[in-house]
Amino acid sequence: MKLSELSTETGVSTASLKYYLRESLLAPGEPVTRTQSEYGPAHVERVRLIRALVDSGGLSLAQVRRVIDALDSPTVPRHELLGVAQEALMEAEKFDEDAEWTALATAFVEQRGWRIEDGDVLLPQLGAQLKALADTCDVGGRETLDRWADAAEIVAASDLDTLTGDDAQALRTAIVGTVLSDKVLQTLRRLAQQNRTAQLYEAARGSDGDSDQ
Amino acid sequence: MKLSELSTETGVSTASLKYYLRESLLAPGEPVTRTQSEYGPAHVERVRLIRALVDSGGLSLAQVRRVIDALDSPTVPRHELLGVAQEALMEAEKFDEDAEWTALATAFVEQRGWRIEDGDVLLPQLGAQLKALADTCDVGGRETLDRWADAAEIVAASDLDTLTGDDAQALRTAIVGTVLSDKVLQTLRRLAQQNRTAQLYEAARGSDGDSDQ
Repeated sequence: MKLSELSTETGVSTASLKYYLRESLLAPGEPVTRTQSEYGPAHVERVRLIRALVDSGGLSLAQVRRVIDALDSPTVPRHELLGVAQEALMEAEKFDEDAEWTALATAFVEQRGWRIEDGDVLLPQLGAQLKALADTCDVGGRETLDRWADAAEIVAASDLDTLTGDDAQALRTAIVGTVLSDKVLQTLRRLAQQNRTAQLYEAARGSDGDSDQ
Repeated sequence: MKLSELSTETGVSTASLKYYLRESLLAPGEPVTRTQSEYGPAHVERVRLIRALVDSGGLSLAQVRRVIDALDSPTVPRHELLGVAQEALMEAEKFDEDAEWTALATAFVEQRGWRIEDGDVLLPQLGAQLKALADTCDVGGRETLDRWADAAEIVAASDLDTLTGDDAQALRTAIVGTVLSDKVLQTLRRLAQQNRTAQLYEAARGSDGDSDQ
């Protein structure tokens, strides 16, 4: 299909498509004439991936580039792809590394029995996030962390179960799915909070006989 | 304390503090002379809140304003504060409302038995997020959604348990804690994925006798 047809098929303007081509986010089409190239289903899929990561995943184009570089890299062993893409996503977030909190995060992960490689960038990241929580609102004690980790294990098990086969497509699904479903999980958490708040408020109203407001 | 001391105490530059004052994110100090005001512990706390929301929560100053407006509003009944602040945070995210997917999200929430008010902004948001997932990577079927909701219930129960008492301070903790701990949960999910990936990879290596790479 022509560039204009790729635009119609994906709902992305030709100006944006040309930008993706210039930035090598999108592979060039097959040249047909001096001014025209032919695009195929792989281009449609790649454009949809870019838009999904930007629109729904909330990633910047710089972050999209990192994910795509990881996906396209032939030197990354397949079983490491998920980790590499995760690190690429994380790199964009700035945080102040704190040795004490990194050690605390590492100790927690070890106590859970999680197999995480030494020096994983996620460990100082987790440490910095826990430090921010402790500094600001005294949340994130051991009991809370354990409940969060329980929830994370449920989600991660589900994540890996949705990987049918172990081909690159499945891993791509896992990466994109993780970015997009982070948002779903945030929304579900807020809905579940509202549900629980409503329950607790009703219970309080019932017990103190407050009839209005 | 003087503005310069507030700066030292919080590690935030006087230029930024003046900006917060101009933007009414921070209440004016008590005037002492024509050019000097006195700031107190409430100012320190507010500045720390702003920085935590920006640095660790990843919020824009516009989003911080919405949270602070909700926190400071005397017309918001206390039990609705969490919901109002959640909506304020959500408003900044753009999404295309889709009636069919909103209905699907609403039906799911009802089937879970969650008590959510009609017209809650989170429902079209959840619908749009589920649509993006389905469009992009065929993830988010009923079984997956149920596992995610199980995880969300664990987290929400923990969230509400950390609210000791029902005063404004506790709700503030809940709101700030939710924003910051969203990040912690994302990181824990990725660590749990790596753990699970390592386990599955080891299992696959063991079963097919593949000795290297």
